Amino acid sequence: MSRILGIDPGLHITGWGVIDYDGFYLKHVAHGTIASSPSENIASRLGRIFKELSDVVERYSPEEAGIEEVFVNSNSFSSLKLGMARGAAICCLGVLGLKVCEYAPNKIKKSVVGTGRATKDQVSVMVQKLLNCGDVKLDAADALAIAICDAHHKTFYTAAG
Amino acid sequence: MSRILGIDPGLHITGWGVIDYDGFYLKHVAHGTIASSPSENIASRLGRIFKELSDVVERYSPEEAGIEEVFVNSNSFSSLKLGMARGAAICCLGVLGLKVCEYAPNKIKKSVVGTGRATKDQVSVMVQKLLNCGDVKLDAADALAIAICDAHHKTFYTAAG
Repeated sequence: MSRILGIDPGLHITGWGVIDYDGFYLKHVAHGTIASSPSENIASRLGRIFKELSDVVERYSPEEAGIEEVFVNSNSFSSLKLGMARGAAICCLGVLGLKVCEYAPNKIKKSVVGTGRATKDQVSVMVQKLLNCGDVKLDAADALAIAICDAHHKTFYTAAG
Repeated sequence: MSRILGIDPGLHITGWGVIDYDGFYLKHVAHGTIASSPSENIASRLGRIFKELSDVVERYSPEEAGIEEVFVNSNSFSSLKLGMARGAAICCLGVLGLKVCEYAPNKIKKSVVGTGRATKDQVSVMVQKLLNCGDVKLDAADALAIAICDAHHKTFYTAAG
């Protein structure tokens, strides 16, 4: 049994989800979101992402983390804001010594729904079915989907030797 | 006498510089760079920015920090990389409870050289003259320039009441 943390970083809302997996067996452990308001200063917002993710890692002791590969937005300003949230989250994992795997968005959707073109709602519904975990907010569902993708990826490559 | 940390974040090289100021009197305290290689994984690179900046704050105990305001690149991928380095640096300051002030690039250049259109080399030469601190690498010189800009800004506004 291994434990994975999935993260969906965003400056406004960062989703996180923890699952256990053993081969193709998946079990929901916990999920949540870290929210901040544009009215707060940027150092507090990014500091909160770092501190709350540190708490999640300390509480659930995942062995590794998965994160969505960079989606480069056509808007540079959005990319910069996403980059800052992503920087705060990934540096937290780096400081705590967790291995971080990155997965392309269509690979994550394919792992969960079976098609790389699934909508956010379809991902959310399938995450809840696969993990049997009741209602999950979209940002946390995305984070759990990343964790599931990481588990499938590991299982496949382990099985393939 | 107050102490300011200036930071010029970058994924490849992050420059930092610490100065003391008292009215218009400026004194160089320390400066340096945090470097990482593209061959390292991103979590280690961002984790190093966080850890080394934490060490700088612990060693020199600045009262506040200055950072360059976002220059949005026309290339979204560059903005995302810059955003990640910036996110790691700013979240470090947030976690350590430092106040962070942002300054536009032309305001920083104007503070040091007297014109908002100064080149990097001109900024470096003037930083060395103003702080009487010998040869300083460009990235660290930019960080010291940010600290000088912060000091001038504080002095002006304090003097203006």
